[in-house]
Amino acid sequence: MLGSGFIARFYADSLHAQRRVDRIHRVYSRTLANAKRFCEDYQLDGYTDNMEEAINHPDTDVVLIALPNHQHLEAVLASAKAGKPVLCTKPLGRNAEEAKAMLDAVESAGVFAGYLEDLCYTPKFLKAVKSVEQGNLGRILWTKSREAHPGPHSDWFWNKEFSGGGAIIDLGCHCVEISRNFIGKQHKPMEVMCWADTQVHPIDAEDHAIGLVRFANGAIGQFEVSWTFRGGMDLRDEVMGTEGTIWLNSFLRTGFEMFTTGLGASYVAEKSESNSGWLFPVGDEAHELGYPHMFTDMFDALEKGTEPRETFYDGYVVNAILDAAFLSAKSKQWEPVLLEDWRGEAPGNAGSHFREHDADHWLIKQEILPNGDVKLILKNKLTGAITQQLQ
Amino acid sequence: MLGSGFIARFYADSLHAQRRVDRIHRVYSRTLANAKRFCEDYQLDGYTDNMEEAINHPDTDVVLIALPNHQHLEAVLASAKAGKPVLCTKPLGRNAEEAKAMLDAVESAGVFAGYLEDLCYTPKFLKAVKSVEQGNLGRILWTKSREAHPGPHSDWFWNKEFSGGGAIIDLGCHCVEISRNFIGKQHKPMEVMCWADTQVHPIDAEDHAIGLVRFANGAIGQFEVSWTFRGGMDLRDEVMGTEGTIWLNSFLRTGFEMFTTGLGASYVAEKSESNSGWLFPVGDEAHELGYPHMFTDMFDALEKGTEPRETFYDGYVVNAILDAAFLSAKSKQWEPVLLEDWRGEAPGNAGSHFREHDADHWLIKQEILPNGDVKLILKNKLTGAITQQLQ
Amino acid sequence: MLGSGFIARFYADSLHAQRRVDRIHRVYSRTLANAKRFCEDYQLDGYTDNMEEAINHPDTDVVLIALPNHQHLEAVLASAKAGKPVLCTKPLGRNAEEAKAMLDAVESAGVFAGYLEDLCYTPKFLKAVKSVEQGNLGRILWTKSREAHPGPHSDWFWNKEFSGGGAIIDLGCHCVEISRNFIGKQHKPMEVMCWADTQVHPIDAEDHAIGLVRFANGAIGQFEVSWTFRGGMDLRDEVMGTEGTIWLNSFLRTGFEMFTTGLGASYVAEKSESNSGWLFPVGDEAHELGYPHMFTDMFDALEKGTEPRETFYDGYVVNAILDAAFLSAKSKQWEPVLLEDWRGEAPGNAGSHFREHDADHWLIKQEILPNGDVKLILKNKLTGAITQQLQ
Amino acid sequence: MLGSGFIARFYADSLHAQRRVDRIHRVYSRTLANAKRFCEDYQLDGYTDNMEEAINHPDTDVVLIALPNHQHLEAVLASAKAGKPVLCTKPLGRNAEEAKAMLDAVESAGVFAGYLEDLCYTPKFLKAVKSVEQGNLGRILWTKSREAHPGPHSDWFWNKEFSGGGAIIDLGCHCVEISRNFIGKQHKPMEVMCWADTQVHPIDAEDHAIGLVRFANGAIGQFEVSWTFRGGMDLRDEVMGTEGTIWLNSFLRTGFEMFTTGLGASYVAEKSESNSGWLFPVGDEAHELGYPHMFTDMFDALEKGTEPRETFYDGYVVNAILDAAFLSAKSKQWEPVLLEDWRGEAPGNAGSHFREHDADHWLIKQEILPNGDVKLILKNKLTGAITQQLQ
Repeated sequence: MLGSGFIARFYADSLHAQRRVDRIHRVYSRTLANAKRFCEDYQLDGYTDNMEEAINHPDTDVVLIALPNHQHLEAVLASAKAGKPVLCTKPLGRNAEEAKAMLDAVESAGVFAGYLEDLCYTPKFLKAVKSVEQGNLGRILWTKSREAHPGPHSDWFWNKEFSGGGAIIDLGCHCVEISRNFIGKQHKPMEVMCWADTQVHPIDAEDHAIGLVRFANGAIGQFEVSWTFRGGMDLRDEVMGTEGTIWLNSFLRTGFEMFTTGLGASYVAEKSESNSGWLFPVGDEAHELGYPHMFTDMFDALEKGTEPRETFYDGYVVNAILDAAFLSAKSKQWEPVLLEDWRGEAPGNAGSHFREHDADHWLIKQEILPNGDVKLILKNKLTGAITQQLQ
Repeated sequence: MLGSGFIARFYADSLHAQRRVDRIHRVYSRTLANAKRFCEDYQLDGYTDNMEEAINHPDTDVVLIALPNHQHLEAVLASAKAGKPVLCTKPLGRNAEEAKAMLDAVESAGVFAGYLEDLCYTPKFLKAVKSVEQGNLGRILWTKSREAHPGPHSDWFWNKEFSGGGAIIDLGCHCVEISRNFIGKQHKPMEVMCWADTQVHPIDAEDHAIGLVRFANGAIGQFEVSWTFRGGMDLRDEVMGTEGTIWLNSFLRTGFEMFTTGLGASYVAEKSESNSGWLFPVGDEAHELGYPHMFTDMFDALEKGTEPRETFYDGYVVNAILDAAFLSAKSKQWEPVLLEDWRGEAPGNAGSHFREHDADHWLIKQEILPNGDVKLILKNKLTGAITQQLQ
Repeated sequence: MLGSGFIARFYADSLHAQRRVDRIHRVYSRTLANAKRFCEDYQLDGYTDNMEEAINHPDTDVVLIALPNHQHLEAVLASAKAGKPVLCTKPLGRNAEEAKAMLDAVESAGVFAGYLEDLCYTPKFLKAVKSVEQGNLGRILWTKSREAHPGPHSDWFWNKEFSGGGAIIDLGCHCVEISRNFIGKQHKPMEVMCWADTQVHPIDAEDHAIGLVRFANGAIGQFEVSWTFRGGMDLRDEVMGTEGTIWLNSFLRTGFEMFTTGLGASYVAEKSESNSGWLFPVGDEAHELGYPHMFTDMFDALEKGTEPRETFYDGYVVNAILDAAFLSAKSKQWEPVLLEDWRGEAPGNAGSHFREHDADHWLIKQEILPNGDVKLILKNKLTGAITQQLQ
Repeated sequence: MLGSGFIARFYADSLHAQRRVDRIHRVYSRTLANAKRFCEDYQLDGYTDNMEEAINHPDTDVVLIALPNHQHLEAVLASAKAGKPVLCTKPLGRNAEEAKAMLDAVESAGVFAGYLEDLCYTPKFLKAVKSVEQGNLGRILWTKSREAHPGPHSDWFWNKEFSGGGAIIDLGCHCVEISRNFIGKQHKPMEVMCWADTQVHPIDAEDHAIGLVRFANGAIGQFEVSWTFRGGMDLRDEVMGTEGTIWLNSFLRTGFEMFTTGLGASYVAEKSESNSGWLFPVGDEAHELGYPHMFTDMFDALEKGTEPRETFYDGYVVNAILDAAFLSAKSKQWEPVLLEDWRGEAPGNAGSHFREHDADHWLIKQEILPNGDVKLILKNKLTGAITQQLQ
């Protein structure tokens, strides 16, 4: 385990739970005291402030990177060099260039590599993606992923040099990959339009941003990210298709509602902001955030020699999209997604999706009126004239 | 009453209900049969297919325009000419030029004019705006208004020439005015970024669009409009401020949930798409959509000689914003909102909003950790260094 | 208007709103100062502390009783004597004996009488009842009505002699009449089982009770009432039928959700208990509680010479059911509902409702399994043997 | 594993998932073909239709009973005789007598025994109980647990002789134990009032029941169970205390909402009744139903030599409460819970819980009025007089 902070503890809590077979052996942190405390808390075999030592230790079968963003590259390169399988937390890089270097390193070294994108592993998300893949929603038109809270826990997040950006890099990486899963990873992300601003916090990076990613098949992946939201952690996804829609709420409204006058004042949930009034705890936070299913997929894939659902290549594509978002926020126009290494479908012609009513007409809409009548709105294919008729 | 279609009926149902004092006297429709049927259904005094006759009739105290978009201008000009108070449905014009002509006409004639923007009058919205004005949410950073359904009822909506556009003009007018109310009408809308596409229906206009409006105070008004949504009528608003957030759901989740195997098959709600399974009816549709409170404000203002909450000037600003949205959807960049007649505050300097921790530091974030510790993340005003400390 | 307290103000706010034609002319209160203040607040013609004077005043077309429970009888008798139409707030009497005396008085005098049971007039409830009547839920099996909050506003409620009881009489009257509407008023309430206790408040009456009312058709009307609930005003109804279910939430979850850090501290909603954290205001409280639709029905019925939806006879039946509830809470067994004057259907044989599979078998259940198989569980009519088969 | 039906599969899916260390070795079923299929599906070591053989097999470290209710006793006695730890599904017995025999058997034999009451292990429930134990809700006054669906999957459930009853025994066992956890297992269940009826299905047992359990501390545990509910599987719990309330929804409203026109028709969730319209799937059913956390507790306790959260003694108390419920449904009065073996606190005096205002007065209620005034309602300790005063 490289890292001993907030996310490292979430990982450890998820791995050392529910009678799982996998165990963390040792921990690295730049600050030895932190490493020691983590080691004791999770009863590990050892700790160190020497990254190479941790990676190369013979007991280390897999390297698990839970470090600040600016240390991912170094850690991945060292793991690849050591020939060890590596799992890296999100975002993969601070930008596509870093991500590509990591991707190349693990592929050259031939080591297993997994991208720890937990929100693409929440049980709700996995079932929703499956439902989309089964066609329950028809052709996907739009997805929206929203992640908003009052800001991250550690100081390095707020430092643009260490993090690579603000809310876009911290939260947008989740949202963009969620969209890719729903829309289909084979569809190339073409261009991005993004607004970003620093509205509240005295930082150089953005603390609020909204972006649209246009995919080759015409679908739009929208992201809404913010470090300025008040009210807890807002994690919501939506998908719209020609045959249906899905709404997911992963944190603030999951069927657990509680009112308390505040007599007791115990910890309620990650990023919750109050301890009285109406509160919305989550049953099992790690589970709701996807950690257990993520590690199951990672270690199962490692053992079976298959690819995990989320790979370093995915992390690279995500970084490339976010790079375009940063550019667009400055240029104030749509910016192309630059992907020197595209492995999905070549962008093609989406083709016509119109529904035919009869040989001469497209069907615009069919509707049941309050009185039971069925109304059709039709368009003449030749003349373009729009008419309505009751059936 | 000018018009006898879907919206005219909603208006009549709202006016002739709950023992209100106001009454519709006569109705105009281009199609005499429709006018006759409407007249009979609501037991009016008369009907006609001559617009001027309806307007100039001595019993007509107020002209109520519920016509297709391309007829608003003509009807308003005729009303102004007749010196009659006029209430016009949304959007005011097909574009800002038409809206400005209507605004000028009523102001020159000195007649009372109200903009029938019903969704700015829903009881939830009125209370939410009041709460925002009282400061419960602090400084407003972002609003989102979403209106999505499977498409409008009448054929003229689908014809760009008659309607002035697709989902943007039909639904975006609501969303933009909702944002202006939350952000404050005194703040000038500066520029718009908009994506629009025709994803499903065989029409020339857009059936899906997403836009961002940047206001002079830095707040963003987001709109999401669609004629491609499946699942009913999705009406949701959100507001984020520095001290809180509001989420409104005006149609699909209002505390009325119903499951039926489908034995009975009665009308459930406007734009609902099924009659079995889980359904989400609305108690009193007209009320939930704002019609009663809208007409109360309009007629009260008329009698008191004050301005209604929603005026022709508001309608004009909305059209100007939507004009910029249409432009942006084509140019693929932010487009300025062109307002030759701006009556709010001059765009100024937003000023710094940062919170001070002490003389040397800004406060980035304060947080209570699971173990009860309070963590501060600070930024040195001079050096910009970001540090964290536990209290 | 007789009374000037909390409920009188809700009535006045509802009547003097939304451009309604009806007006309150004068107000009576035992305390002259309260009458005066009420008169001024609502700009009435006059006030008095002499009830007879108020009733007999020539401007008084209708008597509206918003008095404490122990004054209803006196006020109704005086109104009947004066030959004036009378509307009385809930509960009608402190017990069935009082209610019967009022019913007899208005019927003897031949005056119009309406029972102001507002929660049977909420827009959601009206639509739900209509849906039930249309058969969307099949045969009704069970209803549940829950009303719970931290306790009423005025002192007299807490005094058993004035109120006639505690939460049962104050809130149970709503719940029982809600159940009767869903189940069908023609079905006779047969017996009641009730638990009641004084769990929190230092009073003689119950502050928490749960009861079951068995109707002649086998349906159960459940009520849950409490003055000990923390979290606001909990108003929820449920109905179960053989073909579906309805869930209504009339106050705490109506599509209006708000988080605030508490910077502003304004009034949020009736019986809300906090001004920060997550709050759940209601758009238009009077509307959501049924007052406008109630008065519309009352005055429309009065003008048309028909019966309102809720009559003094209904109030009497409700009191008789609550009498049985009080008895049962003491006797700890089911107690019969004593109705000397029953105007609905005579209790008969409910008959068999079983579904036949074929000549020899009843169908217990049909189910689609995860693998798509259809499983039938059958009961042999003769032998009673239960078997399952896959189709 | 004894049993190969619906619940056995849920158990196996939960155990053989998420990289857990524990494994099922062999399976017993009365029907050899079912045992064989189960063995193959889960890749076990062997199968048999001889229960003793399965129990006594040297590879069997723990006996897991997932049999119909009437086989629990036999299986537990055999396990005790074999000296093997035993985990038994719910309900423990068909009645308290059977349960007591099982409890005595495992205690005499000194074998570890766990009661597989999964709904007391859902992550939401565990966190809610912890919150209650921390005092966030104050003194618990009332709990409600509701489990309702259209009826169970297998034929034996519908046969009273095999199951021991209908919805009460099948679902009430969950609800009663949920109440005990919230109220505190140390508080003795004193008496039960229960209504039960066979409203829909052609069976001898009840398909709908509602009951109240009164505990020694005055708290009420309410259960609502039904095999007649339409709309899916309704799993809701509520708790009310003097300082707050908790609402849990474990199945139909967990933050996953989906609308589909029905193009795809895949399995959505346990006991869901439709495949189109609005659907409410659950992310990870086994997790939401508590299976993983239940088995973790059981095997952890077994290894550590401690007691699991849910023991055979708990199962026995539950059966005793349900016995009283069946009696009450017939006798139509409250029936005492007969517990020859009570291990909790002796029922004592609950004591006064009233809040004092000053030396002479109890505080009935304190309330903030819309205008900001604070109103107190007081009761004189000596005279009992109730007064109100504004502060």
